[in-house]
Amino acid sequence: MSKQVDGPGRWVNGSEPRLSRAGVGRLSLYLRRLEALLREGAATVSSGALGEALGVTDAQVRKDLACLGGLGHPGVGYDASALIAAIRRALGIDREWRAALVGVGNLARALLRYHGFADRGFRIVALFDADPAKVGQRVDGLEVFAADQMARVAPARGVELGILAVPAGAAQATAEALAAAGVRGILNFAPAVLRLPPAVSVVSVDLTVQLEQLAFLVQTGGDEAARRGAR
Amino acid sequence: MSKQVDGPGRWVNGSEPRLSRAGVGRLSLYLRRLEALLREGAATVSSGALGEALGVTDAQVRKDLACLGGLGHPGVGYDASALIAAIRRALGIDREWRAALVGVGNLARALLRYHGFADRGFRIVALFDADPAKVGQRVDGLEVFAADQMARVAPARGVELGILAVPAGAAQATAEALAAAGVRGILNFAPAVLRLPPAVSVVSVDLTVQLEQLAFLVQTGGDEAARRGAR
Repeated sequence: MSKQVDGPGRWVNGSEPRLSRAGVGRLSLYLRRLEALLREGAATVSSGALGEALGVTDAQVRKDLACLGGLGHPGVGYDASALIAAIRRALGIDREWRAALVGVGNLARALLRYHGFADRGFRIVALFDADPAKVGQRVDGLEVFAADQMARVAPARGVELGILAVPAGAAQATAEALAAAGVRGILNFAPAVLRLPPAVSVVSVDLTVQLEQLAFLVQTGGDEAARRGAR
Repeated sequence: MSKQVDGPGRWVNGSEPRLSRAGVGRLSLYLRRLEALLREGAATVSSGALGEALGVTDAQVRKDLACLGGLGHPGVGYDASALIAAIRRALGIDREWRAALVGVGNLARALLRYHGFADRGFRIVALFDADPAKVGQRVDGLEVFAADQMARVAPARGVELGILAVPAGAAQATAEALAAAGVRGILNFAPAVLRLPPAVSVVSVDLTVQLEQLAFLVQTGGDEAARRGAR
């Protein structure tokens, strides 16, 4: 089975990466915070300041950043620019990633207009759809190709990642087509578990899981508020 | 600050819920798996079978489910229906949650057509947008209200949760308006950190974090494949 991460974070196959999913996620958040601080003119940042913004302890910050090499200077903190570069290198986003978006519906249109992807070096360079009515249309300057053109178009455009925004029933076949076209990683929005060769990584996004987490927080907070109020 | 969860999972305020975010996420996934097994005719399920499908050890499954009470029977497993009911109760989704969707763009349209929400008891019952051109339109049978009608419309429709799909610059003000309208939890798609009263829970969805996780997996997998190939 492919190396796979689902909603709440787990690595499915045997080869554990050096960082946990939560650790990788924290690096992403440190990066955002560091970039904001740099824009505000800060040249150095302490583990305390980084942690405070993210609700993480100093110790956790130092532990997370230790795996990047000895970048911290006691009493001074971290050089913001050097730390940004190190995190980008660790995450593998110190370069451009070319992605294909498959399934050109409302979600795809929302993702195409989401500038965060391009800002982080993720460039959507090809669109595919199985619906003949959509093939040949241009969306945000990109032509929509027929899904059966994937094996030809994706390698020609240097596509390494696929973003799957198709209905659940089409997800597995589409993911296999992406893998056959040389795609090495899939961001899966379809509510389906994908079974792919180990060489293909999958991150699944299940928005219902996030809503369930919210419901849990609201319910728990309510319970706690009620307990605090009652006693 | 509000009780808040960001991309990779962290609880920001002091009152820790009894389950970690990862634990809550696993409960969501166990639930999906159990429902699939029940549809296939299974009446009982072992921790091993549940864990295998999700890439989690037996021991972790038993630990996660222990907090729901003594539902497992050695040598028999868990009663699938009872476990489903217990998980739904623990997550707070054994009832309907009414949500308002704010910002009626492509993402909102995609979410409205995403049946997973309704299937899980999350009903979108009100739409709001600040754009006068959108106010009064109907999208999937729901009228779009002016954002300044929130304080009137949301309580009248029993809205408890808000789904924020507005641009980053409008996120904080919109979230405050939702809180003022009595909303207790916000699912935030805007790339902005929200500062809200402690009574309001926030789960932020940052899709770039997920793409960065994918890039990390692909890069790590590639490194490992290269190492295995070279030695």
